[in-house]
Parts: sequence; structure tokens; C-alpha cells
Amino acid sequence: MGRTELRSELGQQLRVDAIRASDAGGSGHPTSSMSAADLMAVLLDGHLRYDFDRPGDPRNDHLVLSKGHASPLLYAAYKAAGAIDDAELLSFRKLGSRLQGHPTPAIPWVEFATGSLGQGLPLGVGLALTGKRLDRLPYRVWVLCGDSELAEGSVWEAFEHAGHERLENLTAILDVNRLGQRGPTRHEWDLDAYADRVRAFGWEAIEVDGHDVEAIDAAYEQAEHVSGRPAAVIAKTEKGRGVRAVENLEGFHGKPVKDAGEAIEELGGVRDLRATVAEPEGADRPHRFDGTGSQEPRYEVGEEVPTRQAYGEALAALGGRRPEVVALDGEVADSTHAYRFAEAHPERFFEMYIAEQLMVAAAVGMQSRGWKPYVATFAAFLSRAYDFIRMAAISEADLRLCGSHAGVAIGQDGPSQMGLEDLASLRAVHSSTVLYPCDANQTARLVEEMADRDGISYLRTSRGAMPVIYPPDERFPIGDSKLPRASDDDDVTLVGAGVTVHEALAAADVLAEDGITARVIDLYSVKPVDAEALTRAASETGAIVTVEDHWPEGGLGDAVLDTLAAADAGATVRKLAVRRMVGSGAPAELLREAGIDADAIAGAARAIAAHPAAAS
Amino acid sequence: MGRTELRSELGQQLRVDAIRASDAGGSGHPTSSMSAADLMAVLLDGHLRYDFDRPGDPRNDHLVLSKGHASPLLYAAYKAAGAIDDAELLSFRKLGSRLQGHPTPAIPWVEFATGSLGQGLPLGVGLALTGKRLDRLPYRVWVLCGDSELAEGSVWEAFEHAGHERLENLTAILDVNRLGQRGPTRHEWDLDAYADRVRAFGWEAIEVDGHDVEAIDAAYEQAEHVSGRPAAVIAKTEKGRGVRAVENLEGFHGKPVKDAGEAIEELGGVRDLRATVAEPEGADRPHRFDGTGSQEPRYEVGEEVPTRQAYGEALAALGGRRPEVVALDGEVADSTHAYRFAEAHPERFFEMYIAEQLMVAAAVGMQSRGWKPYVATFAAFLSRAYDFIRMAAISEADLRLCGSHAGVAIGQDGPSQMGLEDLASLRAVHSSTVLYPCDANQTARLVEEMADRDGISYLRTSRGAMPVIYPPDERFPIGDSKLPRASDDDDVTLVGAGVTVHEALAAADVLAEDGITARVIDLYSVKPVDAEALTRAASETGAIVTVEDHWPEGGLGDAVLDTLAAADAGATVRKLAVRRMVGSGAPAELLREAGIDADAIAGAARAIAAHPAAAS
Repeated sequence: MGRTELRSELGQQLRVDAIRASDAGGSGHPTSSMSAADLMAVLLDGHLRYDFDRPGDPRNDHLVLSKGHASPLLYAAYKAAGAIDDAELLSFRKLGSRLQGHPTPAIPWVEFATGSLGQGLPLGVGLALTGKRLDRLPYRVWVLCGDSELAEGSVWEAFEHAGHERLENLTAILDVNRLGQRGPTRHEWDLDAYADRVRAFGWEAIEVDGHDVEAIDAAYEQAEHVSGRPAAVIAKTEKGRGVRAVENLEGFHGKPVKDAGEAIEELGGVRDLRATVAEPEGADRPHRFDGTGSQEPRYEVGEEVPTRQAYGEALAALGGRRPEVVALDGEVADSTHAYRFAEAHPERFFEMYIAEQLMVAAAVGMQSRGWKPYVATFAAFLSRAYDFIRMAAISEADLRLCGSHAGVAIGQDGPSQMGLEDLASLRAVHSSTVLYPCDANQTARLVEEMADRDGISYLRTSRGAMPVIYPPDERFPIGDSKLPRASDDDDVTLVGAGVTVHEALAAADVLAEDGITARVIDLYSVKPVDAEALTRAASETGAIVTVEDHWPEGGLGDAVLDTLAAADAGATVRKLAVRRMVGSGAPAELLREAGIDADAIAGAARAIAAHPAAAS
Repeated sequence: MGRTELRSELGQQLRVDAIRASDAGGSGHPTSSMSAADLMAVLLDGHLRYDFDRPGDPRNDHLVLSKGHASPLLYAAYKAAGAIDDAELLSFRKLGSRLQGHPTPAIPWVEFATGSLGQGLPLGVGLALTGKRLDRLPYRVWVLCGDSELAEGSVWEAFEHAGHERLENLTAILDVNRLGQRGPTRHEWDLDAYADRVRAFGWEAIEVDGHDVEAIDAAYEQAEHVSGRPAAVIAKTEKGRGVRAVENLEGFHGKPVKDAGEAIEELGGVRDLRATVAEPEGADRPHRFDGTGSQEPRYEVGEEVPTRQAYGEALAALGGRRPEVVALDGEVADSTHAYRFAEAHPERFFEMYIAEQLMVAAAVGMQSRGWKPYVATFAAFLSRAYDFIRMAAISEADLRLCGSHAGVAIGQDGPSQMGLEDLASLRAVHSSTVLYPCDANQTARLVEEMADRDGISYLRTSRGAMPVIYPPDERFPIGDSKLPRASDDDDVTLVGAGVTVHEALAAADVLAEDGITARVIDLYSVKPVDAEALTRAASETGAIVTVEDHWPEGGLGDAVLDTLAAADAGATVRKLAVRRMVGSGAPAELLREAGIDADAIAGAARAIAAHPAAAS
């Protein structure tokens, strides 16, 4: 069999196997797989350089299935590559199978979970940036996109950035099958519409018949040799190609083919061809930066330092000791203080401009190659990337996020700039860690702690200067808390984090004048929380006031209540949080308006300390 | 003074007033205001058709300041239009002033809060769609964008949709001042880069010197007369224009000009010119659709119906009775069942393709003109629009969101498609309502309840069929709950919503066999919650199991704990929720894997009902 014929046959095999897998699983997306089968066959047989026995080989190309619902195609390709057997292929979508409905890194050859559309190309940009600027290896990043998902703005953030960075190691394959989930796409088979757009964004555009394996081969060849810019192979294809009952017809998205036997026969029956996957080549030692050495920042007690400044200083210092640390910022590095890292380690800093989705995706790409990215923007604007953070957790990514300008304490800029839902939204991310420091030493130590933390860790920093209350040698393990004020006979406990620790300390002073002794818990680790300190406080004081610069739902107060409930630790609890939309004003004015300043805390504490409920 | 000279002088006045406001406020963005001052002067004096005395006049043009940080420019324009006086201008950013750091609808002429960049153009698309397809009035939508924010993908979702819909009533003004917050933008003054991109997306591109008032006038004129497509006026400008100390220099973003007096002198001093704002013209009666009449859907007890189907059926019926109801969907209308509305009311249905940010923004635009948008996609993918939802709350928008395919109960599609953080993230939105029905009648009634609900309301629907347990005439007020199972001597309370109500009912059956009588609370209104039913259950049963198809943080369980704590209602509470990342599997298998099925509930209930803590 000549190579052209073999590739055609391989395409048919991928179709057949996609149909068989979906049929066995009872659900899935065979028609979306069939449109891209020839594109995948040619990629697998001759273009993708990959060692399936060594998925961690740094020389390997990268294949990202952005249209994750076409997972049967990907799994069929794994079978054709000899990576899985037929029995496993048919375990598709069954409990315990690693071949899930949409790909996840439960499979060793999958780097990222996909299935939320529009994420593959941004992830691919992260890998391509890594190949070019960090690893400095010649691997190529192939991203197979659907046409429907090109409506996602995140894809255009990726096209823009890749064009601007001239990522010639990145190839996007656009499977233009004309039909989205519920009907025709915006541009249907107007390939020029896509070509015009990607060219305007600085890409090479290569239009091709996506069912002509020779033409596809030539298109990939061309993409591999484009110089100085990324290339998009824009392929005209048919959804459900090869099976008359579904080919180019609406109404067959995400459904197994009804008569699988007939469809398989129409496609020429079951085959067991093996693709000849090209071996990776070239140097196998990724570039490593030299450690420059550096001193951890240390702050004197009483100094007034914004925690965002400590983030930047600690990160710059960490970068000196840990050459695998990289930093990304969304064009606000002067505000988040990430600029300090950029100045110290310009080669490891990535300006992602105001494109938070791309920024998070790029970081996910970098960490998959072993780098340790820290990602910063305003806490409020991380909400822009929430779906990407959610998916990063499914990708089992280790990601470090910093959100600055938390809460009403930012003052004059007003509510659009106030991160007030970040604790809730990021606590509700699987595997997440949520940290909220109140002074510069604490911030610096937590930045260091994050470096070796698995999963998604989030650090919330503040705009304004706050006094340093802990000495520079103090340690702040994740999951612990601090007691900046405590005695054996406290009448009430005040639990805060960040700016509200300072308000709580001030409240404790006020309460002391009334003869009420208040314990203050600095709950800098909001997730996981220090259950022991909280339950002890409940038992010893019987009355707890929680206070947070955040909406009332899902933040620090709820973390405390959850912990007490799980431990059956009874106590009277009052939760102070921001309960009204504030406008502009001075920080102290807004803390007062929001009812989370020292006076409000003292008032709440007085009310329950005076009439404490029976302790458990 | 000739008109050209007057407009030039007006531009200088806007600069001076932006400097004065920022100086008085002690913070703000004068330099970002100064670059666009001439663009604003010409717009205000002769192009914008607007009656400042009647901001609700349906004939009015719309002006969206997408670069919301340039608020001093907007406020200076209000002064030049005679809408505010100088004293108010100087109240900028002070506590209680409606002239906040970034514009909000506290000001009658501001329709949307801006300040999270990249949102103005999507909002403008919503208004332009409204003008063209709903109101059918000839008003024009002007959106003033910064250049930095063009990195946001949401902007390209808007360019794409506006081009596709041929929104000739939309004009984007791009203030290309070359400098972002922390340095040069990607394309600096490469105006062609922007022109090429917007042309590829189907727009007319008009390049202009943004400080030449005659050229600006001609450009606006041209934009007003472009036929069949939207126009972008791409203006080359200088940040800080007119003041040597800051003009076209880095490092002066977001800072008052140091020597305001000197700067004002350099600009020719304080002026008090009045712009001649053109009057709105044309018909003042927006189009109204005829009510077609329809029957509310009714389901028989015992029928098996997915709640997403009830959403579609109820919405289609509601649309028949309420001609102001419109629906938007993110290319998944066959899954969310919004297609039923599309079929019944095609003129009021908007296919927004897979662009969730744009979809939410467009809905915010529509509601600002009095329409009642319902927005649907998978619950998981609403996370894509989280920043837009957050900002919609600041815009005081009335918005109805539906997230389908909630939780692990979706089964085989796997975690990327499971909404598992939606309750937490949407509870943590200011002014939000969160609803989670368990049967079709309940869903239908809640869809109706949402129509007259202020703020952001969210309905969580499920993929699989569930038995109808409530009769069709049952009412479900927001803030209430139901007791599908209760007696006077219950031993334990099971609190669920959606799919877990059915699991809780099954658990109650199991528990009954052990002689344990369980009360079941259907907490369909997750925010606000029915505090009375919960505190009564705490007091009467002393033991509560909450169970939710959601991560443990910030969802139903935390809502219950918060309510009990606020009421000092002591009870032993166990919170069941999804605590591990599940893969694909049958729905029942995954409920079991996640530990939220009937057996898990019964087990938890048995443990605490057997040893109930003392009730309060």
C-alpha cells in the first residue's frame, strides 16, 4: 500500500473506530470525529514527532485536541499508534476508563483537559512560548480546533499573541465542518473568512480540502516550513464524512451513529492499520536558566508595606533561587508589582497584555513542561479567566495565581476594580489553595510556600500599605493560622484575614476598654483552614466574629462555619462581610460603609460576647 | 468662534476639567482622558444625538465609555453638556459622589458600569442589536474604546458578531494612544494593524488623526453613513496630549498631573464652553411585539422530564404572554432547550454562538432598553462570562441566566461539562438570586418568577429526566422551600435541591426501614434561602444533612450553615458534596462515586440522627 492509500485507509479506520467507541459507550461525538479523521491520519502518520512510549520526552511534539468532544478520534489515533488496544478503545466513557467523554490527563499522552471550547489554542500558545523562550527546543505544537469554537474570544487572544510573538513552532488545524452543535456555524464553509482573519492577526493561512490526504500532507509540510510566524491549516471538511446517514447533515451532533454496523460497512469495515509515527529529533535537554541567587525579602515590624509590593519582591527573589519560576502578568505589572520579577528576570517574564484567559492558559501550558508559573492581575479581573482556572484544575495543573487590589479597601477606584468574589469563586475550584496575607513578611513567605504547592493556589493581595506585624523569621505554613492576640480567658474571638486582621486588632483594643478580652485569629490560609485553632476558639470563647473584605457568600466566614460544623464545635458566630455595593471613597471610609471596620467588629463582638451562647 | 475652533477649545476644556477633577479627587486617569478629549469634543458637539434632560428618551443615541478609567473625560463632557455643574465635577471620587472612579449607573446618563476593560463593545453590540431587531429605532451606539483593551478576546467576539449582523448603527471609536497602563501596547501606533483586523471582521475601518477636529468630524460623518456594516474610527492620539510633562510619556497612567496649575495654564486655562448637543430625532415609539398568548406548561406528577426541557417550554410559553421577553443562547439551544423559544418567537431569539462573554453583555445591553433577556448555556460555561456577570451586578442589570447540565449527574460527558462551581460563584454576585429546581413544574414556575425579579437571577437546570413530584398548580415563591416529606417527630432533616432532592427522598425511604424518620427540605431557592424552614428543622430535628451536586465550597450547604448561624440555631450538620474529581460514568454511578447518592445521605443521616446533638 502506498503512503497516500495508507493514509486514506487510516482515515477510514479512525472513522470506524470513532463510531465503534461511541457505539460501545452509548454516547459521544462520532460525527465531529469523522470530519477531522483525514487531518488526524496525515498528522499521525508522518508529521507529528512523538514517542508514545515516552510521553515525557522533551523532544516530543505536542498535540492539543481543542475540540475535545472529538475524543473518539483522539482515542482511535492512540490505537492506530499502538498506544492503546482495541479493548480499551471500547471502554470509552465507562466508569473507571481513562478514555473519558472529553480528554483529561488521566491519559499519559494528554497534557490538558479540553471540552470547554476555545481553550486549546491558548494552551498551545503557552506550549509554543515555552518551546521558543523557555525550553528552547524545536518541538512543534499542533492544535486541532473546531470551527464553532472560533467564536470564542479566547481563541483570538491566542491568534493575536502568537502572531505578535512570531510563534513559528505553532500550527493550528481548523476543522471547518460547517456545522456546530445546533446548526450551521457563522461562516459555514467560507474558508476565506477564517483565512482573512488569521492573516490579519499575523498568521500564515493555508486553505485545504480536509479530505484529500495528499493536499493535507502538503499543507502540513508548508506549515512546518513557514518562517517567522505561526500557520493555520484551514480545512474544508464534512461532519460525519463517509456515512450517508449523517454526512453533512444537521441533528447528529453528539450522538452515536444509529446503525453502527451499516456505517462501518459503508466505511469499508474494521481495519487494524498501524500509523508510522515519526520519532522526535534533536536535542533532548531543555534550556535551564542559571540561578542568580537572592535574599528573601525581610520587613521590619511596624514598616508600612502593601502586600502586593511584597508579592513582587518575594517573587523576584524566589526567581533568583528557583530558575524554574516564571511570571506572567496582564499588563498591570506596575500595580501587581510583578514588574519587580520582570526587571530581575526579563527572560522569564511574559507580558500577556490585557488577555486574562490567554494568560492563565499560557501558564497552564508552561507548567505542563515543568516550569513554575506565577500569574498576576487584579483579583477582580481573574474572574475573566474563571473557566480557564476551572479547566486547569481538571488538567491537574499546578498553577499559582495572584489577585491584587482585593476588596473595598482599594478605595477610590470603585467597585469595578474591587475583587469581592474571588475567595468564593476560587475556594470552589477543585484542589485549590486560597491564601490572604495581612503583612509583607507573611506575603513573602506564602509566595515561597506556593512554589511547591500542588494544584491551583491563589494569593490575594491588597492595594494599600499595611503595617508589618510579624517578624521576618516567622513561618506561615499553609493550613495554619496565627494568633496575633490571644490569652487563656478570651471572651470572644475575631477571625479575619488581610486588611481585616488590622481592623480586628483595632477592635480588640476598643473592646479591651470595655473589659472584653478578644482573641484575634489571622486566618491567612482560607483554604485549607486551621480547624484546630477555630474549634479551640469556639470551645474557649464560645463567641466568634468573622470579618472579611468580600461579599458574604463563600468566603472566609463560610470557611469558618463549615469547619465548626464539621467538628461539631458549637459557638455563636456573627459573620461580617460587604453587604452593599459601595462606590468610591477613601479606604477607611469604605471599610466603614461596608460594615467591616474596627467599630463594626467591636459592635458585633460586644453583642455576642455579652450574651455568649453555651459553648459546646 | 467658528465650529472648528470651538471644538478645539472644547477639547482643551475637557482636558483641563479632567485634570481639575483628578486633582480635586487626588487620584484618577487624566492622561487617558486627554488622549480622547478631541474625539469626545467632536462627538458631543454635533454627532451624538442626546437629550440630557431625558436620558430615558428612546430616540437617544447611546454612548458607552468602554475605557471606563477615562471617567474624568466623561464627567467633563457632562459638564460641557450642561448636565452637571463645576462643583459636582470636583466631587470626583469622593465618598457619596455619583462621579465614581469608574462610571456606574448611579449617574442617569450612564447605562453600564465600565472599568473592567473589553466590555464596552460587547455591551454596545447588545444595544445595537436592540436598536435594529427589537426597538427598531434609528439611534446610534457609540463606543469609545482604549487600545490596550483590544487585547481582550471579548472585544473580538463583539467585532465578529457586529460584522456578521451588519450592525450599521454601531460605531466604535478606538483611541490609539500607544500607551497602556505599564508601557507600550502591542501595536503602539500601527493603526493599520487595527484596521486590517477590524476589516477582516467585516467592519469599515476609518483611520484618523485623533487631534484634528476637522478630520474627526469627517470620520464620524463617514461612519454615520456607512451602509450594511459597523464602522470603527481608528484614531491616532497621544496620551496626556497637550501637557509636556506627561504627553506621550510612560509612567503617568492613573495619576493626577503633578502640577495641575501649570498644566492648566499650558492648556490655555479654565474655560466654560457649552457644547451644542444634537437633539434626538425620529420616531420615539420603540417596536413592540404582539403577545401571542400561550398556556403555561403543566406536567403530571410521576412524569419523567428533564428540568432543562421545562426551562425551554416555560420560556417559550412566557414569551407568548410577555412580549418583552427575549432569549439568548450560546450555540447549545438544543441542549439548554432554548430552541423551544427560538421556534416560538424567532424574532426575539438571539443565537450568540459560542461566545459567552458577548452573550451576557448583549443581554445587559438589551435589558437596559427595557427588554427581559433570558440567557442560557451549560452551567459550566457561564463561568466563561463571570467577569461580565460581576460587572452586570454593578450595572444594576436585571438579568436572567440559566445554566444547564449541572453537576456530576450529567454522567458520561465528564468533568469539563459539569457545572460544579456555579452555585458558589453566582451566590457571590451582588444582588443575585440562585434557584435550583428538582422537577418540571417547579422549573416552569421559577422561570416565570424570574421575569419580575430584580438583579441577577440564576436558574440551574439538569440534564437527565427526573420524576415530577409537585402538582402543576403548586407555587414556588423565591425565598421559600418545600417539604416533600415531613412530620412532627422527624429525627433528622435532609436538605437538597435539584437532583439531590430525589436522592434525599430515596434516602428517607431507606432510613424509614431503620425506624428513622427523615424530613426532606427542597431548598430550590438557594439564595435567598428559607431561613424559617431551616431554623425550624434545626430546632425540631437537631440533625441536618445537606447534600448538593456541587463542590463543597460556597453552595447549598454553606447557605444552610450561614442561615443557621445567623439565627443561632444549633444543630448537628453534615454537609455532603462532591469532594473528588470524577470522570465519565452513568449518572447514578457518578452520584455514588461523588458520595451524594441516597446511600451516602442515609449513612450520614444515620450517624447523626442516632446521636443527635442537643437542639438549641
